[in-house]
Amino acid sequence: MTPATPARAALIALDWGTSSLRAYRLDNAGRTLDTRHLPWGIMRLPQPLQDGAASTPLSGFDLAFDQACGDWLRAEPTLPVIACGMVGSAQGWQEAAYLDVPVDLERIGTLLTVVERHAAGPNATPLHIVPGLIQRHGLPNVMRGEETQVFGVMFDQTRGSDAHPADNVLIGLPGTHSKWVNARRGRVTHFDTFMTGEVYAVLRGHTILGRTMSEAPAPDMAAFERGVKVAGAPAGRAGVLSTIFSTRALGLTGELASTSQADYLSGLLIGHEIAALARMLHEQGELPRIVLCGDPALCERYIVAMQHYGLGTPEQAQNATERGLWHLAVCAGLVKAPPLTSASA
Amino acid sequence: MTPATPARAALIALDWGTSSLRAYRLDNAGRTLDTRHLPWGIMRLPQPLQDGAASTPLSGFDLAFDQACGDWLRAEPTLPVIACGMVGSAQGWQEAAYLDVPVDLERIGTLLTVVERHAAGPNATPLHIVPGLIQRHGLPNVMRGEETQVFGVMFDQTRGSDAHPADNVLIGLPGTHSKWVNARRGRVTHFDTFMTGEVYAVLRGHTILGRTMSEAPAPDMAAFERGVKVAGAPAGRAGVLSTIFSTRALGLTGELASTSQADYLSGLLIGHEIAALARMLHEQGELPRIVLCGDPALCERYIVAMQHYGLGTPEQAQNATERGLWHLAVCAGLVKAPPLTSASA
Repeated sequence: MTPATPARAALIALDWGTSSLRAYRLDNAGRTLDTRHLPWGIMRLPQPLQDGAASTPLSGFDLAFDQACGDWLRAEPTLPVIACGMVGSAQGWQEAAYLDVPVDLERIGTLLTVVERHAAGPNATPLHIVPGLIQRHGLPNVMRGEETQVFGVMFDQTRGSDAHPADNVLIGLPGTHSKWVNARRGRVTHFDTFMTGEVYAVLRGHTILGRTMSEAPAPDMAAFERGVKVAGAPAGRAGVLSTIFSTRALGLTGELASTSQADYLSGLLIGHEIAALARMLHEQGELPRIVLCGDPALCERYIVAMQHYGLGTPEQAQNATERGLWHLAVCAGLVKAPPLTSASA
Repeated sequence: MTPATPARAALIALDWGTSSLRAYRLDNAGRTLDTRHLPWGIMRLPQPLQDGAASTPLSGFDLAFDQACGDWLRAEPTLPVIACGMVGSAQGWQEAAYLDVPVDLERIGTLLTVVERHAAGPNATPLHIVPGLIQRHGLPNVMRGEETQVFGVMFDQTRGSDAHPADNVLIGLPGTHSKWVNARRGRVTHFDTFMTGEVYAVLRGHTILGRTMSEAPAPDMAAFERGVKVAGAPAGRAGVLSTIFSTRALGLTGELASTSQADYLSGLLIGHEIAALARMLHEQGELPRIVLCGDPALCERYIVAMQHYGLGTPEQAQNATERGLWHLAVCAGLVKAPPLTSASA
């Protein structure tokens, strides 16, 4: 048996965060040929072997990198490699810059940090890390990885048939730390962070609220919506530090089953996030176009909350990270820009 | 050597919560003769011996009880014993009732739950557990233990030289779960819960915010005040799920030392609690008298926040739990009411 010749690739793109690592092999039109999902986030890398004989021992980063794309590089050694996310943080492989907001998105691609992988040999392909963004006005704010998703969303927006690249766009990236990013004319102008996902996880895992919860056989969207509504109701005016306690109290009064409490809490937290966002947006006047990008089940929850708080139904973007990494690599000159007809395929 | 005859007691009072147990031996004027502090909260009781021979094995509750006051009872076997707190919860020794708010405080003392301690022998002194309070209007709310502190504060208020028992009083009980209790004419009319203390502990112990914090040699009250102010400033309008991320971001921008981040986060959380409370109070019109009761260092932080948000400087109450347990025991007929002159000593 002769193995099939693999399709020729043009770029290896890594989405390397705190808890996981995704690797993409992309062709010369930016189309995804292969995807891998590994558990090697920067906070839980594979352990290097304690081998005193090795002159340049491989780090956990080297090992994770090799598992993610070593075989792809051995098959095509000249492929460039680009990465975004916490791999560029102070706790990452090498610290990449933060660019100050407001910033033109295309500028991001010209300021990649190059990591020479000496431990992998003298001619090892280097890794190019995308910079993060920092906002210094008001309360400071930072992102690493989400700038690439924003790039992916914005690029595809400007290629869409009804796109208005000059419009105000608000891009929502729900997750462990939700980001809401304002962009206009290819420029990121402002962003906010909400620690909603991480707060949910610790309230459920490490406080008294988790003690009365039990696993539900399926998501209880009615309990979720109930929480969403409380966040903006008169009963919720004391704020999230107060309303979360009702998860327990409603259980004690027999008004909320143990299997519904996690979804109710999720609704409260996402509800407080979206109620605050809606208040800020309505104060500013006209609503921007809103594009949501993230895990589909989580986006569905955000859409319920956005509809409840008068933000309408957002557009949804797919595959923003790999689209963003591809177009950043084009901006950086790591790959040649494809003809538009291919890119829009 | 003859041991000194111990002063005669009239009551044993237990403040028995989730994480600790305090025992008080009180004389016939309600004065404290002895105090003990044990780590035997209801969620971490001593382990019973696995002794197959015992016909009625002692539970963790029995063992903790014996360590708290067994010798006091052996010296004076007729002493009544009263307890408040989570010992009366579904996870406690025996579930005590919840009384519906609004409720007259004196009624609390007439509805104690009696726990017969069969494992300790046929004539063992029973334990009397104080009921909790439940509020069913709006979002439901519950307390166990704080009703006793409120009783202690209110009783001493009505005995004070400038007391106005008919006044509206707002009693603040900062802690793991802060309670703010409205009382009028000896009647609890409403209360709110904020999970501020527990949220602080899990954000510090289990989220990315804790990773950049380091121990401070002393409290950094300037960092605390900075957090308090952010909570009510335009920069804080996105709410606490958003502002807490600035703890990390200010560290990354070099504007907040690692040793100051915990106090800044404490300021943010207490600031959001007090800002919400102040908004609700100002909407209601005239401010009530406010009495604060709790750990002195924590109360100091709350006072800074209350001054910042226009609530003035509250009165402070001392020893509210033991005062409350004493007066509840009087209401319940467990001990005889002392002459007023002694009680006010």
